[in-house]
Amino acid sequence: MKLLEQKILSEGRVKDGNILKVDEFLNHKLDIAFLNEIGKEFKRIFADKKIDKILTIEASGIAIACIAAQYFDNVPVVFAKKAKSQNLDGDCYTSVVESFTYKKSFTITVAEKFLKEGERILIIDDFLAEGKAVRGLIDVINQAGAIIEGVGIVIEKGFQTGGKDLRGLGLNVQSLCIIESMENGKLQFKEV
Amino acid sequence: MKLLEQKILSEGRVKDGNILKVDEFLNHKLDIAFLNEIGKEFKRIFADKKIDKILTIEASGIAIACIAAQYFDNVPVVFAKKAKSQNLDGDCYTSVVESFTYKKSFTITVAEKFLKEGERILIIDDFLAEGKAVRGLIDVINQAGAIIEGVGIVIEKGFQTGGKDLRGLGLNVQSLCIIESMENGKLQFKEV
Repeated sequence: MKLLEQKILSEGRVKDGNILKVDEFLNHKLDIAFLNEIGKEFKRIFADKKIDKILTIEASGIAIACIAAQYFDNVPVVFAKKAKSQNLDGDCYTSVVESFTYKKSFTITVAEKFLKEGERILIIDDFLAEGKAVRGLIDVINQAGAIIEGVGIVIEKGFQTGGKDLRGLGLNVQSLCIIESMENGKLQFKEV
Repeated sequence: MKLLEQKILSEGRVKDGNILKVDEFLNHKLDIAFLNEIGKEFKRIFADKKIDKILTIEASGIAIACIAAQYFDNVPVVFAKKAKSQNLDGDCYTSVVESFTYKKSFTITVAEKFLKEGERILIIDDFLAEGKAVRGLIDVINQAGAIIEGVGIVIEKGFQTGGKDLRGLGLNVQSLCIIESMENGKLQFKEV
Protein backbone atom coordinates (compact mmCIF):
# COMPACT_ATOMS: atom_id res chain seq x y z
CA MET A 1 0.00 0.00 0.00
CA LYS A 2 1.94 2.98 -1.35
CA LEU A 3 -0.08 5.50 0.65
CA LEU A 4 0.95 3.70 3.83
CA GLU A 5 4.62 3.62 2.88
CA GLN A 6 4.49 7.36 2.18
CA LYS A 7 2.75 7.95 5.49
CA ILE A 8 5.41 5.97 7.37
CA LEU A 9 8.21 7.81 5.56
CA SER A 10 6.71 11.21 6.32
CA GLU A 11 5.35 10.67 9.85
CA GLY A 12 7.12 7.60 11.22
CA ARG A 13 10.43 7.64 13.05
CA VAL A 14 12.99 4.90 13.44
CA LYS A 15 14.41 4.48 16.92
CA ASP A 16 17.25 2.37 18.29
CA GLY A 17 16.48 -1.32 18.63
CA ASN A 18 14.56 -1.65 15.36
CA ILE A 19 11.62 0.26 16.76
CA LEU A 20 9.42 2.11 14.30
CA LYS A 21 7.33 4.80 15.90
CA VAL A 22 4.03 5.47 14.18
CA ASP A 23 2.36 7.17 17.11
CA GLU A 24 1.54 10.15 14.86
CA PHE A 25 -1.23 8.23 13.11
CA LEU A 26 -1.55 4.58 14.18
CA ASN A 27 -1.13 3.90 17.87
CA HIS A 28 -1.34 6.98 20.07
CA LYS A 29 -2.75 9.75 17.91
CA LEU A 30 -5.09 8.16 15.39
CA ASP A 31 -5.61 9.55 11.90
CA ILE A 32 -9.21 8.56 11.30
CA ALA A 33 -9.35 9.39 7.59
CA PHE A 34 -6.19 7.37 7.05
CA LEU A 35 -7.56 4.45 9.10
CA ASN A 36 -10.47 4.45 6.67
CA GLU A 37 -8.03 4.02 3.78
CA ILE A 38 -6.50 1.08 5.66
CA GLY A 39 -9.94 -0.41 6.22
CA LYS A 40 -10.81 -0.14 2.53
CA GLU A 41 -7.56 -1.83 1.61
CA PHE A 42 -8.20 -4.76 3.96
CA LYS A 43 -11.62 -5.15 2.37
CA ARG A 44 -10.07 -5.11 -1.12
CA ILE A 45 -7.55 -7.79 -0.11
CA PHE A 46 -10.05 -10.04 1.68
CA ALA A 47 -12.98 -9.29 -0.66
CA ASP A 48 -13.49 -12.97 -1.56
CA LYS A 49 -13.68 -14.08 2.08
CA LYS A 50 -16.87 -14.37 4.05
CA ILE A 51 -15.99 -12.90 7.43
CA ASP A 52 -18.22 -13.33 10.48
CA LYS A 53 -16.09 -11.49 12.99
CA ILE A 54 -12.88 -9.50 13.29
CA LEU A 55 -10.58 -10.39 16.18
CA THR A 56 -7.89 -8.02 17.42
CA ILE A 57 -6.01 -7.24 20.60
CA GLU A 58 -6.04 -4.17 22.81
CA ALA A 59 -5.11 -1.41 22.57
CA SER A 60 -3.73 -0.32 19.18
CA GLY A 61 -5.58 -2.99 17.22
CA ILE A 62 -9.01 -1.74 18.29
CA ALA A 63 -9.07 1.46 16.24
CA ILE A 64 -7.92 -0.29 13.07
CA ALA A 65 -10.31 -3.21 13.48
CA CYS A 66 -13.34 -1.01 14.20
CA ILE A 67 -12.82 1.30 11.25
CA ALA A 68 -12.09 -1.68 8.98
CA ALA A 69 -15.20 -3.55 10.15
CA GLN A 70 -17.31 -0.85 8.54
CA TYR A 71 -16.11 -2.10 5.14
CA PHE A 72 -17.02 -5.71 6.05
CA ASP A 73 -20.75 -5.07 6.46
CA ASN A 74 -20.23 -3.93 10.06
CA VAL A 75 -19.24 -7.38 11.30
CA PRO A 76 -18.67 -7.40 15.07
CA VAL A 77 -15.17 -6.75 16.39
CA VAL A 78 -13.91 -8.69 19.41
CA PHE A 79 -10.76 -7.55 21.10
CA ALA A 80 -8.65 -9.79 23.29
CA LYS A 81 -8.02 -8.21 26.68
CA LYS A 82 -4.58 -8.02 28.20
CA ALA A 83 -5.59 -7.73 31.84
CA LYS A 84 -8.00 -9.83 33.80
CA SER A 85 -10.74 -7.37 34.68
CA GLN A 86 -13.06 -7.80 37.63
CA ASN A 87 -15.72 -7.40 34.98
CA LEU A 88 -14.64 -10.39 32.92
CA ASP A 89 -16.67 -13.20 34.32
CA GLY A 90 -17.74 -16.43 32.78
CA ASP A 91 -15.61 -18.83 30.79
CA CYS A 92 -12.70 -17.40 28.88
CA TYR A 93 -10.12 -18.58 26.40
CA THR A 94 -6.66 -17.47 27.44
CA SER A 95 -3.20 -17.56 25.92
CA VAL A 96 0.18 -16.31 27.08
CA VAL A 97 1.89 -13.78 24.81
CA GLU A 98 5.43 -12.46 24.99
CA SER A 99 5.59 -8.79 24.09
CA PHE A 100 8.44 -7.42 21.99
CA THR A 101 7.46 -3.87 22.90
CA TYR A 102 6.91 -4.30 26.61
CA LYS A 103 9.59 -6.96 27.11
CA LYS A 104 7.43 -9.17 29.29
CA SER A 105 4.75 -11.84 29.04
CA PHE A 106 1.07 -11.22 29.50
CA THR A 107 -2.09 -13.26 29.25
CA ILE A 108 -4.73 -12.42 26.69
CA THR A 109 -8.33 -13.26 27.40
CA VAL A 110 -11.41 -13.65 25.19
CA ALA A 111 -14.80 -14.59 26.60
CA GLU A 112 -15.84 -17.97 25.21
CA LYS A 113 -19.25 -16.65 24.21
CA PHE A 114 -17.63 -14.29 21.68
CA LEU A 115 -15.84 -16.95 19.64
CA LYS A 116 -17.95 -19.81 18.35
CA GLU A 117 -17.12 -23.04 16.60
CA GLY A 118 -17.18 -22.64 12.85
CA GLU A 119 -17.16 -18.83 12.83
CA ARG A 120 -14.99 -17.32 10.14
CA ILE A 121 -12.52 -14.94 11.74
CA LEU A 122 -10.31 -12.22 10.30
CA ILE A 123 -7.43 -11.29 12.60
CA ILE A 124 -6.34 -7.65 12.36
CA ASP A 125 -3.41 -6.03 14.13
CA ASP A 126 -1.12 -3.06 13.72
CA PHE A 127 2.31 -4.73 13.78
CA LEU A 128 3.74 -8.13 12.95
CA ALA A 129 7.29 -8.68 14.18
CA GLU A 130 7.92 -11.98 15.96
CA GLY A 131 4.25 -12.81 15.63
CA LYS A 132 3.67 -13.46 19.32
CA ALA A 133 0.42 -11.51 19.60
CA VAL A 134 -1.03 -13.09 16.45
CA ARG A 135 -0.06 -16.54 17.73
CA GLY A 136 -1.97 -15.80 20.92
CA LEU A 137 -5.03 -14.86 18.87
CA ILE A 138 -4.65 -18.00 16.74
CA ASP A 139 -4.48 -20.03 19.94
CA VAL A 140 -7.80 -18.69 21.25
CA ILE A 141 -9.45 -19.12 17.83
CA ASN A 142 -8.28 -22.73 17.75
CA GLN A 143 -9.55 -23.32 21.28
CA ALA A 144 -12.95 -22.11 20.08
CA GLY A 145 -12.91 -24.26 16.96
CA ALA A 146 -13.40 -21.16 14.83
CA ILE A 147 -11.84 -20.74 11.38
CA ILE A 148 -9.04 -18.30 10.55
CA GLU A 149 -9.91 -16.76 7.18
CA GLY A 150 -6.97 -14.41 7.17
CA VAL A 151 -4.56 -12.23 9.09
CA GLY A 152 -4.49 -8.54 8.13
CA ILE A 153 -1.46 -6.62 9.35
CA VAL A 154 -0.76 -2.93 8.82
CA ILE A 155 3.05 -3.02 9.19
CA GLU A 156 5.13 -6.19 9.00
CA LYS A 157 8.77 -6.18 10.01
CA GLY A 158 10.02 -8.50 7.28
CA PHE A 159 13.41 -8.87 8.91
CA GLN A 160 11.82 -10.58 11.88
CA THR A 161 10.45 -14.09 11.66
CA GLY A 162 6.73 -13.70 12.46
CA GLY A 163 5.46 -13.35 8.90
CA LYS A 164 7.49 -16.25 7.57
CA ASP A 165 6.53 -18.48 10.49
CA LEU A 166 2.81 -17.74 10.21
CA ARG A 167 2.77 -18.20 6.41
CA GLY A 168 4.66 -21.45 7.01
CA LEU A 169 1.67 -22.62 9.02
CA GLY A 170 -0.47 -22.10 5.89
CA LEU A 171 -2.11 -18.93 7.15
CA ASN A 172 -3.26 -16.25 4.71
CA VAL A 173 -1.18 -13.39 6.13
CA GLN A 174 -1.59 -10.10 4.27
CA SER A 175 0.48 -7.12 5.31
CA LEU A 176 -0.25 -3.68 3.89
CA CYS A 177 3.46 -2.97 3.94
CA ILE A 178 6.55 -4.99 4.74
CA ILE A 179 9.69 -3.32 6.02
CA GLU A 180 12.72 -5.17 4.69
CA SER A 181 15.25 -3.29 6.72
CA MET A 182 15.63 -0.23 8.89
CA GLU A 183 19.41 -0.13 9.16
CA ASN A 184 20.82 3.24 10.23
CA GLY A 185 17.34 4.65 10.48
CA LYS A 186 16.67 4.16 6.76
CA LEU A 187 13.50 2.30 5.86
CA GLN A 188 13.49 -0.15 2.95
CA PHE A 189 10.14 -1.59 1.93
CA LYS A 190 9.55 -4.91 0.20
CA GLU A 191 7.16 -4.92 -2.76
CA VAL A 192 3.81 -6.39 -1.66
CA MET B 1 -30.78 8.05 23.91
CA LYS B 2 -33.68 5.60 23.84
CA LEU B 3 -31.92 3.22 21.46
CA LEU B 4 -29.08 2.90 23.96
CA GLU B 5 -31.41 2.26 26.88
CA GLN B 6 -33.14 -0.47 24.86
CA LYS B 7 -29.76 -1.95 23.94
CA ILE B 8 -28.66 -2.02 27.59
CA LEU B 9 -31.97 -3.58 28.66
CA SER B 10 -31.76 -6.28 26.00
CA GLU B 11 -28.02 -7.04 25.99
CA GLY B 12 -26.62 -5.68 29.26
CA ARG B 13 -26.47 -7.62 32.51
CA VAL B 14 -26.35 -6.33 36.06
CA LYS B 15 -23.87 -8.02 38.34
CA ASP B 16 -23.21 -7.80 42.05
CA GLY B 17 -21.46 -4.65 43.19
CA ASN B 18 -23.33 -2.26 40.89
CA ILE B 19 -21.50 -3.57 37.87
CA LEU B 20 -23.25 -3.27 34.53
CA LYS B 21 -21.84 -5.61 31.90
CA VAL B 22 -22.13 -4.32 28.36
CA ASP B 23 -19.48 -6.55 26.88
CA GLU B 24 -21.97 -7.73 24.25
CA PHE B 25 -21.71 -4.45 22.35
CA LEU B 26 -19.50 -1.82 24.02
CA ASN B 27 -16.32 -3.11 25.61
CA HIS B 28 -15.33 -6.61 24.56
CA LYS B 29 -17.45 -7.46 21.55
CA LEU B 30 -18.09 -4.24 19.65
CA ASP B 31 -21.29 -3.61 17.70
CA ILE B 32 -19.97 -1.38 14.94
CA ALA B 33 -23.34 -0.32 13.51
CA PHE B 34 -24.47 0.61 17.00
CA LEU B 35 -21.25 2.53 17.71
CA ASN B 36 -22.08 4.57 14.62
CA GLU B 37 -25.43 5.50 16.18
CA ILE B 38 -23.56 6.57 19.30
CA GLY B 39 -21.15 8.63 17.21
CA LYS B 40 -24.01 10.39 15.41
CA GLU B 41 -25.64 11.19 18.74
CA PHE B 42 -22.45 12.73 20.14
CA LYS B 43 -22.23 14.87 17.00
CA ARG B 44 -25.86 15.97 17.43
CA ILE B 45 -25.23 16.92 21.07
CA PHE B 46 -21.95 18.76 20.43
CA ALA B 47 -22.93 20.13 17.00
CA ASP B 48 -22.32 23.75 18.03
CA LYS B 49 -18.80 23.06 19.30
CA LYS B 50 -15.69 23.40 17.21
CA ILE B 51 -13.65 20.32 18.13
CA ASP B 52 -9.99 19.98 17.19
CA LYS B 53 -9.33 16.61 18.78
CA ILE B 54 -11.05 13.82 20.67
CA LEU B 55 -9.29 12.50 23.77
CA THR B 56 -10.12 9.11 25.26
CA ILE B 57 -8.44 6.38 27.30
CA GLU B 58 -7.51 2.84 26.41
CA ALA B 59 -8.97 0.37 25.86
CA SER B 60 -12.78 0.61 25.70
CA GLY B 61 -12.84 4.30 24.85
CA ILE B 62 -10.88 3.85 21.63
CA ALA B 63 -13.59 2.18 19.59
CA ILE B 64 -16.23 4.73 20.58
CA ALA B 65 -13.95 7.71 20.00
CA CYS B 66 -12.75 6.51 16.58
CA ILE B 67 -16.21 5.79 15.22
CA ALA B 68 -17.52 9.09 16.65
CA ALA B 69 -14.61 11.08 15.16
CA GLN B 70 -15.95 10.25 11.72
CA TYR B 71 -18.95 12.48 12.48
CA PHE B 72 -16.65 15.33 13.58
CA ASP B 73 -14.93 15.78 10.21
CA ASN B 74 -12.47 13.02 11.04
CA VAL B 75 -10.73 14.99 13.79
CA PRO B 76 -7.76 13.09 15.23
CA VAL B 77 -8.32 10.84 18.23
CA VAL B 78 -5.68 10.65 20.95
CA PHE B 79 -5.91 7.92 23.53
CA ALA B 80 -4.24 8.10 26.92
CA LYS B 81 -2.13 5.02 27.56
CA LYS B 82 -2.35 3.08 30.78
CA ALA B 83 1.08 1.45 30.68
CA LYS B 84 4.43 3.04 30.12
CA SER B 85 5.58 1.46 26.88
CA GLN B 86 9.21 1.18 25.85
CA ASN B 87 7.95 2.93 22.72
CA LEU B 88 6.68 6.01 24.52
CA ASP B 89 9.60 8.36 24.42
CA GLY B 90 9.75 12.10 24.62
CA ASP B 91 7.93 14.30 27.06
CA CYS B 92 4.61 13.10 28.40
CA TYR B 93 1.79 14.40 30.51
CA THR B 94 0.85 11.91 33.20
CA SER B 95 -1.86 11.59 35.79
CA VAL B 96 -2.68 8.95 38.38
CA VAL B 97 -6.12 7.37 38.11
CA GLU B 98 -7.89 5.09 40.55
CA SER B 99 -9.88 2.40 38.75
CA PHE B 100 -13.31 1.37 39.99
CA THR B 101 -13.24 -1.71 37.76
CA TYR B 102 -9.71 -2.90 38.43
CA LYS B 103 -9.59 -1.78 42.07
CA LYS B 104 -6.13 -0.27 41.80
CA SER B 105 -4.36 2.89 40.69
CA PHE B 106 -2.62 3.34 37.40
CA THR B 107 -0.86 6.14 35.61
CA ILE B 108 -2.17 7.47 32.32
CA THR B 109 0.22 8.97 29.82
CA VAL B 110 -0.24 11.28 26.83
CA ALA B 111 2.68 12.49 24.73
CA GLU B 112 3.00 16.25 25.05
CA LYS B 113 3.17 16.70 21.30
CA PHE B 114 -0.41 15.40 20.95
CA LEU B 115 -2.06 18.00 23.19
CA LYS B 116 -1.37 21.61 22.40
CA GLU B 117 -2.19 24.85 24.16
CA GLY B 118 -5.49 26.27 22.99
CA GLU B 119 -6.70 23.10 21.23
CA ARG B 120 -10.38 22.43 21.71
CA ILE B 121 -10.81 18.93 23.11
CA LEU B 122 -13.83 16.65 23.36
CA ILE B 123 -13.38 13.91 25.96
CA ILE B 124 -15.18 10.66 25.14
CA ASP B 125 -15.42 7.57 27.34
CA ASP B 126 -17.67 4.58 27.81
CA PHE B 127 -18.55 4.86 31.51
CA LEU B 128 -18.78 7.61 34.09
CA ALA B 129 -19.05 6.38 37.68
CA GLU B 130 -16.77 8.09 40.20
CA GLY B 131 -15.24 10.09 37.36
CA LYS B 132 -11.65 9.11 38.10
CA ALA B 133 -10.66 8.38 34.50
CA VAL B 134 -12.23 11.60 33.21
CA ARG B 135 -10.46 13.56 35.94
CA GLY B 136 -7.18 12.08 34.78
CA LEU B 137 -7.93 13.21 31.23
CA ILE B 138 -8.91 16.68 32.46
CA ASP B 139 -5.63 16.82 34.36
CA VAL B 140 -3.52 16.14 31.25
CA ILE B 141 -5.60 18.61 29.19
CA ASN B 142 -5.03 21.27 31.82
CA GLN B 143 -1.31 20.53 31.90
CA ALA B 144 -1.28 21.15 28.15
CA GLY B 145 -3.27 24.35 28.40
CA ALA B 146 -5.85 22.93 26.02
CA ILE B 147 -9.58 23.69 26.27
CA ILE B 148 -12.23 21.17 27.32
CA GLU B 149 -15.21 21.74 25.03
CA GLY B 150 -17.19 18.86 26.43
CA VAL B 151 -17.29 15.41 27.95
CA GLY B 152 -19.28 12.77 26.08
CA ILE B 153 -20.14 9.67 28.07
CA VAL B 154 -22.04 6.63 26.84
CA ILE B 155 -23.29 5.34 30.19
CA GLU B 156 -23.34 7.39 33.38
CA LYS B 157 -24.02 5.77 36.72
CA GLY B 158 -26.13 8.57 38.17
CA PHE B 159 -26.07 7.04 41.64
CA GLN B 160 -22.32 7.59 41.82
CA THR B 161 -20.82 11.02 42.23
CA GLY B 162 -18.70 11.52 39.10
CA GLY B 163 -21.30 13.27 36.95
CA LYS B 164 -22.38 15.65 39.71
CA ASP B 165 -18.78 16.46 40.63
CA LEU B 166 -17.70 17.15 37.06
CA ARG B 167 -20.75 19.30 36.30
CA GLY B 168 -20.03 21.11 39.55
CA LEU B 169 -16.69 22.10 38.04
CA GLY B 170 -18.62 23.78 35.22
CA LEU B 171 -17.84 21.09 32.65
CA ASN B 172 -20.28 20.36 29.83
CA VAL B 173 -20.85 16.67 30.62
CA GLN B 174 -23.30 14.94 28.29
CA SER B 175 -24.23 11.33 28.94
CA LEU B 176 -26.21 9.35 26.37
CA CYS B 177 -27.95 7.58 29.21
CA ILE B 178 -27.93 7.91 32.97
CA ILE B 179 -28.69 4.96 35.20
CA GLU B 180 -30.52 6.15 38.27
CA SER B 181 -30.45 2.85 40.10
CA MET B 182 -29.73 -0.80 39.55
CA GLU B 183 -31.12 -2.20 42.78
CA ASN B 184 -31.85 -5.93 42.69
CA GLY B 185 -30.62 -6.11 39.15
CA LYS B 186 -33.35 -3.79 37.87
CA LEU B 187 -32.20 -0.82 35.81
CA GLN B 188 -33.90 2.55 36.19
CA PHE B 189 -32.91 5.28 33.76
CA LYS B 190 -33.09 9.00 34.34
CA GLU B 191 -34.58 11.14 31.56
CA VAL B 192 -31.77 12.89 29.68
